[in-house]
Amino acid sequence: MVVELISVGTELLLGNIVNTNACFLSQQLAAIGMSVYYQTTVGDNEKRLQGTLKEALKRSDIVILTGGLGPTKDDLTKEVTAKVLKKELVEDKNTKKRIKEYLGKSHYGEITENNWKQAMIPEGALVIDNDNGTAPGLVVGSEDGKKVILLPGPPNELIPMFKEKILPILKESSEEIIYSEMVKVAGIGESRVETEIADLIQNQSNPTIAPYAKTGEVHLRITAKAKSEKEAKKLVKPIVEELKKRFKNAIYTNKEEENLEDALVRLLNKHDLKVTTAESCTGGLIAGRLVNVAGVSEVFNQGLVTYSNKAKRKLLDVSKSTLKKYGAVSKQTAKEMAVGAAIFTNSDVAVAVTGIAGPDGGTEEKPVGLVYIGCYVNEKTVVKEFRFNGNRNKVRELTVVHALDLLRRTIIENYE
Amino acid sequence: MVVELISVGTELLLGNIVNTNACFLSQQLAAIGMSVYYQTTVGDNEKRLQGTLKEALKRSDIVILTGGLGPTKDDLTKEVTAKVLKKELVEDKNTKKRIKEYLGKSHYGEITENNWKQAMIPEGALVIDNDNGTAPGLVVGSEDGKKVILLPGPPNELIPMFKEKILPILKESSEEIIYSEMVKVAGIGESRVETEIADLIQNQSNPTIAPYAKTGEVHLRITAKAKSEKEAKKLVKPIVEELKKRFKNAIYTNKEEENLEDALVRLLNKHDLKVTTAESCTGGLIAGRLVNVAGVSEVFNQGLVTYSNKAKRKLLDVSKSTLKKYGAVSKQTAKEMAVGAAIFTNSDVAVAVTGIAGPDGGTEEKPVGLVYIGCYVNEKTVVKEFRFNGNRNKVRELTVVHALDLLRRTIIENYE
Repeated sequence: MVVELISVGTELLLGNIVNTNACFLSQQLAAIGMSVYYQTTVGDNEKRLQGTLKEALKRSDIVILTGGLGPTKDDLTKEVTAKVLKKELVEDKNTKKRIKEYLGKSHYGEITENNWKQAMIPEGALVIDNDNGTAPGLVVGSEDGKKVILLPGPPNELIPMFKEKILPILKESSEEIIYSEMVKVAGIGESRVETEIADLIQNQSNPTIAPYAKTGEVHLRITAKAKSEKEAKKLVKPIVEELKKRFKNAIYTNKEEENLEDALVRLLNKHDLKVTTAESCTGGLIAGRLVNVAGVSEVFNQGLVTYSNKAKRKLLDVSKSTLKKYGAVSKQTAKEMAVGAAIFTNSDVAVAVTGIAGPDGGTEEKPVGLVYIGCYVNEKTVVKEFRFNGNRNKVRELTVVHALDLLRRTIIENYE
Repeated sequence: MVVELISVGTELLLGNIVNTNACFLSQQLAAIGMSVYYQTTVGDNEKRLQGTLKEALKRSDIVILTGGLGPTKDDLTKEVTAKVLKKELVEDKNTKKRIKEYLGKSHYGEITENNWKQAMIPEGALVIDNDNGTAPGLVVGSEDGKKVILLPGPPNELIPMFKEKILPILKESSEEIIYSEMVKVAGIGESRVETEIADLIQNQSNPTIAPYAKTGEVHLRITAKAKSEKEAKKLVKPIVEELKKRFKNAIYTNKEEENLEDALVRLLNKHDLKVTTAESCTGGLIAGRLVNVAGVSEVFNQGLVTYSNKAKRKLLDVSKSTLKKYGAVSKQTAKEMAVGAAIFTNSDVAVAVTGIAGPDGGTEEKPVGLVYIGCYVNEKTVVKEFRFNGNRNKVRELTVVHALDLLRRTIIENYE
């Protein structure tokens, strides 16, 4: 099955927004074994949109268009699709009712005449209700058995609609079952991950292993095709087991929806540990990641941003002689920061970071990118030195991921 | 001038990475008055890339291809371009020398034979040296006077190359001078900004005003075309003055490169004010934004993440009766947090936030999205109530922007 993506919107052509929809859809389609050969972005322009859709229908089985389903005259995606597929637009009563209810609930004020444009659908189209907006999704068939799928542009409407309602339809159009699992690895570089599994990836066909590199993380998606889900799971299982054997503690989850901070907070909850943070170069971003997790309050009371030496001394009791002898960016300071943070906040475990994020402040001996991460766990302290590449932002992002990961690993080593 | 973008890379079609290059280039091109009608993404596939480039050359004056310039056999962009434009590939001595020096310096280990592939260029092409990698940029002319521009895919190579070396070439190919200025507004919604300037935008032609919506901010780009820069500046100036009159303090900068935290830190420096933060629902993200600014240490010593009531009481001295009577998410608590943070850290000004980021914890009276931001400035406290829409992440992002902005405005009102 070859799928083609067309993103519609002048705001994309002006660089007003980044096209995250194309990335999301491509990843989702790859996960169910569908091939995407082209992604095209066009503006809200009838002629160019028509040409692009016609071309796409020549070379692909399914065309997914996103955006251009709004109530204004500029929004042309549905009209152009109907024209290309030679369908009339007719009013869909259910959609009209749903729009009325939706707009009533969200206090958008008066419903204007052009809202009803969104209730018009190409004759015979399958209507996909939108739970987060007014524009419905639509699946329209062509004379030669191809499918055109129209989805709303805003990601908060598109993503749930695709996952909950379009994906099941696409899976149906395949005779085989596609089943995939995710294994997420942190704290190891992409190239090392790929080297470690080169033998598994080589000549793979079913299941396949696809690595996705994230900042400081690699996500491995294992996908199998089979005639039943049971059979597909059976193909995936030994690969997941093999990955667990090879990467051990570096794997922080094999749950699709769980991210690194979720895994850490789960671990803290499991062992009933209160955590705190002491941040210098990351200035609050580690605490910010912890607070991503709804319900983190069970294990996280407070964090400290100690940017200056004065703050490190006052709040964390880092000794004057340590700062003088080794400097603020040193193994010794990171250690004292972690211990001090745990004591000051009366926490069981602590993570502390100090480093040179740049662009200034680097020396030959202590270059930009040098970071020390200290963890206080079970009354012991572990400190690791890192040398990150990249600009200020990149160094800080990598520091955050490695800090969360080092704390996670240290807890496992001490408690499991 | 019509420019078309082709992004080359199977990793884009697999959804492995988001196509930020297309967004960056589109924005840059719009800023110099060039039109982009199509952005296409294709994989590292000879036939499909060839077809896409041929089609693009039919309908556009300039085609910019990004990616696929690496040293491996998969990388085909240069080879396909040469074929389509009927040019031979020849070795460029200067590039070979530069690659040798570059790889020598960065300790990449042995230089392998395929590195020299990157020194091959289409006959007669203009070579653009890459200061951040091995693949050179290339500008190749077609028989009918069109231009094909090849740029490396990694953003840290592409962005500086485009800004420093390609932009001047593109500007030259236009007879007119395009000049633009940016006015950045915070704390006002996009629709209100658009309403306020509807009369300026309507029937505009030269200069134009283009609004770009960011989280909690709107950036307005004013662009003029003229025969000289002086003339263009003269066209832009009255619009900028008019915007300043209309938006007053809501404008935080008219410098292209300055962001909200830069503007705030500049203001703190100007008035010699030490700042601190006390964060509940944002959990460190405000401090994290401040620490984005290199050299923030002059005005920022420490910040506090006080997620629990206990921490609010212990560190910020929020009174037990306030928490009991009004709750942690209240005007009164925000006020006491701001004052307490300034006292505890001995700072001149403080910003404090407390709110319900969701998804849980909301009630009819205090729904998800309710946030109080308190600022302590010049021994006075200002507290504002906000009701944000969106998921946990969105609520937190909006809180961060509005907190930085409220502190900025309060300082201006007190000190300027």
